[in-house]
Amino acid sequence: MTSGAPRPITFLSDFGWDDEFVGVVHGVIATLAPMCRVIDLNHRVPRGDVRSGALTLLRGIQYMPPGVLLAVVDPGVGTSRRAVVVETPWGYMVGPDNGLLSPAVALVGGATRAFSVENPDVMLPARGRTFEGRDRFAPAAAVLAAGEADPHELGPQVDPHALEPLLLPLSDVSDGHVEGQAWWVDTFGNVQTNISPEDLEEAGMSQGQDVAVRVGLMKYRVPWVGSYAEVAEGRPLMHIDSVGLMALAVRGGRADEHFTLGAGTSVVITS
Amino acid sequence: MTSGAPRPITFLSDFGWDDEFVGVVHGVIATLAPMCRVIDLNHRVPRGDVRSGALTLLRGIQYMPPGVLLAVVDPGVGTSRRAVVVETPWGYMVGPDNGLLSPAVALVGGATRAFSVENPDVMLPARGRTFEGRDRFAPAAAVLAAGEADPHELGPQVDPHALEPLLLPLSDVSDGHVEGQAWWVDTFGNVQTNISPEDLEEAGMSQGQDVAVRVGLMKYRVPWVGSYAEVAEGRPLMHIDSVGLMALAVRGGRADEHFTLGAGTSVVITS
Amino acid sequence: MTSGAPRPITFLSDFGWDDEFVGVVHGVIATLAPMCRVIDLNHRVPRGDVRSGALTLLRGIQYMPPGVLLAVVDPGVGTSRRAVVVETPWGYMVGPDNGLLSPAVALVGGATRAFSVENPDVMLPARGRTFEGRDRFAPAAAVLAAGEADPHELGPQVDPHALEPLLLPLSDVSDGHVEGQAWWVDTFGNVQTNISPEDLEEAGMSQGQDVAVRVGLMKYRVPWVGSYAEVAEGRPLMHIDSVGLMALAVRGGRADEHFTLGAGTSVVITS
Repeated sequence: MTSGAPRPITFLSDFGWDDEFVGVVHGVIATLAPMCRVIDLNHRVPRGDVRSGALTLLRGIQYMPPGVLLAVVDPGVGTSRRAVVVETPWGYMVGPDNGLLSPAVALVGGATRAFSVENPDVMLPARGRTFEGRDRFAPAAAVLAAGEADPHELGPQVDPHALEPLLLPLSDVSDGHVEGQAWWVDTFGNVQTNISPEDLEEAGMSQGQDVAVRVGLMKYRVPWVGSYAEVAEGRPLMHIDSVGLMALAVRGGRADEHFTLGAGTSVVITS
Repeated sequence: MTSGAPRPITFLSDFGWDDEFVGVVHGVIATLAPMCRVIDLNHRVPRGDVRSGALTLLRGIQYMPPGVLLAVVDPGVGTSRRAVVVETPWGYMVGPDNGLLSPAVALVGGATRAFSVENPDVMLPARGRTFEGRDRFAPAAAVLAAGEADPHELGPQVDPHALEPLLLPLSDVSDGHVEGQAWWVDTFGNVQTNISPEDLEEAGMSQGQDVAVRVGLMKYRVPWVGSYAEVAEGRPLMHIDSVGLMALAVRGGRADEHFTLGAGTSVVITS
Repeated sequence: MTSGAPRPITFLSDFGWDDEFVGVVHGVIATLAPMCRVIDLNHRVPRGDVRSGALTLLRGIQYMPPGVLLAVVDPGVGTSRRAVVVETPWGYMVGPDNGLLSPAVALVGGATRAFSVENPDVMLPARGRTFEGRDRFAPAAAVLAAGEADPHELGPQVDPHALEPLLLPLSDVSDGHVEGQAWWVDTFGNVQTNISPEDLEEAGMSQGQDVAVRVGLMKYRVPWVGSYAEVAEGRPLMHIDSVGLMALAVRGGRADEHFTLGAGTSVVITS
C-alpha cells in the first residue's frame, strides 16, 4: 500500500443522465474514496462511440486537474477486451483497452507503465457482468485516487506499447489545398475539423482571407475570421476554435445544417 | 442538538435538468450544511412516477455511502400526505410518505424510527407551497447530514409500520413457467424484469439454455447467456443484469423495441 | 493578494450537457481553486437567451450560498462587450456585461464596485476566442473564490452605474384588472407570470376567488387556490408559486398547452 493526498477524479462516460448509472458510480467512489472530488467531464458521449469519447478526452484532458481519469465508453463489455490503468505524466487513466484512452495518453506525454485490472479484491461482487463502470473501473479509480493502492496491486503489468491504439485521420496538405474531415459537431451545431491553422498556412492561406470549403459536391465561400463578431448575424464563417483547430460556424446559427456536415464528413479547404 | 461528522447526502428527484430546481436544492444544502457532499443519484425519474423512483432507489441504495437520502418524487405535494424522516441501519431517509422510500427502507433492514417533518423552524419560509423539495425536505436532510439536529427536532415521532407501503409485483413460479413483468427500461433500451435467476432455476431452467419469452401474443426464443458477447451483433438475449435480475437485451440494439416492451408489461418465461 | 477562506462558486450557463463545456469549466476551477465547491445552478438556459438566464438568477440567487457567481450566457462573445466582476453584498458576480447579472445584482442589494476583467495574467491562453467561459470567466471566478486575488487585480475598476441593465416588464394594475406577461415556463409546463399577489390584491382580487385569465382572444375562468390539491386532476388553477409570483398550472398536466402560453406572452387577469 502507498499513501498520498487524495486526488481528483475526472469521469467521462456514455451513460447519459436518464438512469442512475452516473449516480451509482459516484456513490461507489464516495464510499471507497470519501475525500476525493469527482468532476464529470461529460456523460453524453454517444452510446458506444469510442472515437467520440476519445476526442472529448483529447480536447478536455489538459484542462482537468491532474490525478485520475475514469473513462467508460465500452461497447466490448463482457468480451475479452482488457480493463487497464495507464500511468502517464498527468496521472492514472482507467478504462477499457479499446483505444478510448490512447489519444489523451499520447497528448499528455505517453504511457510510462500500464496494468491490467484483474484483482478481484478491488472489484465489487456482481452476478451480472454488464456494469463494469461500477464494479471494476470505479473501484480501481477510487483506490488510486485515495492513494490506497499502487497500480500493481490492481493486476499484472502489461506492455504500454501493446495498448489498443486509436487511429485518428490526419489532414492532407498540398499547395493551396487542405483535405481533412469534420470530427465533432457540438450542441450548438459548430463543426470542428481535424485541420489546424498551421495546415492552412502551410498551404498558403491566412486569417483575414476568404477560403473555399468543399463538402461533397457543394462549395462554399467563407471568410476566415478571428471571431464570430466579424460577420453578420446568420452568416457562415471559419475560425480557430477553442482547442486550436479550424471550425466552421454560423453566427447565431448551426453550421452542421448550413454545410450539411456530420462527424466524419470529408472537408476540403482551398484558397 | 447532537453533533457528528458531516454525512454525505444522496439526492434523487423527478426535477429534471431543464430548470434550476436541482441547483437550488444544492444551494440550500450548501448553505445549511457546507461540509456535506451531495451525490446526485438521478433526477430524471419520470414526473410524479413514485414507483419508478422507488425502483431506482432499490437498485441504487446499496452503492451509495451511508448517510442521508433526500428523495423527492411527490405528486401529492400540497395534499395532506406527510413529509417523513425514516431512520434505518443505512442512515436517514427523507421524503414524502407516499411509498417512494419503502422498498429501499426494507432493503437496508427496515425502519427503526420515523418522524413527521413539521417543525417550521427547520423549513424555509415561502408564500407558495409547491416546492417542498427546497423548503421542507432539503433543510431536513441538511441538518441531519450536518449532525446539527436529531430527527425528533424535526417533528413528532410516527409509527414506522404506518408508513405508506409500495406494493411491488412478485413473480409467479411454477414448473417450467415463470410469470413476471418488465419493470425498468433503461436509456439503452435494456429491459429489466422482476424475475430472478433463482425463479428460473426453481422452474427448471438454467443459464446456457434457450428459453421462450412470451409478451402478449408474441413468443420469442432467446438464449440465456452470461454476457452480451455470447450472441452476434443485433441478436436478442436474456442475462442476469447488473442488479441481479433477469433482463432482456439486444446486443448493440434496443430490447424494448425488439420485444415491444415497456415498464409494467407482463412477461412469461418458459423452458 | 488577499487571502480568505475558500468560497463556494455558483455556476450558471447555457452550455447544456451534450458536450464537455460544463465539465471543462469545472476542471479549470478545480485546478485553480481546488478547495472551492462548485454548485451548478442550471446549464440549460436556452442558448444565448440573456433574459431567461437573468430570470433564473433572479429566482435562484437567494438560495445559493454567498460567495462567487459565475454566469455565462453570452451571445456577444468575441464582440466588444465587457467581461465584468460585480461586487455585491451577496458576493462577487462574474459574467458578461450584457444585462445577465443585473436583476440578481439589484435583488441582493446592488453593486458596491465593479471591475472589467482584462488582466491576461488571470486568463488561460487560447488561440481561438470563443470559449471565454473557460479562458476568462472561470479563472476570474476561481481566483476570487480561492481568496487569492482582490478584484482590482483582474482589471480596471468601472462605474457600476454604467453596467448594462436588463429591463424587465412591469405589471400594470388598475381596478379589477392586472396586465402582465408569462415570463417562465418550467419543464413541467407551469407558467410563471410577472404578476405578484400584491398586484391582484391591489386590483381587488383575493385567494379563494375565481378570476378570469385572458390570453390573446381566449378567456379562461380559473380558481386562485392555495395548492394544487384544491382542484381535481386535470383542472387548471392559479396559485402563488415557489418564488412568490402568480403562476398558472394544471394539476397533473401542462399549463403552457392548456392556455397556449409561452415566455413573453401577454396575460391579463380580471376579477
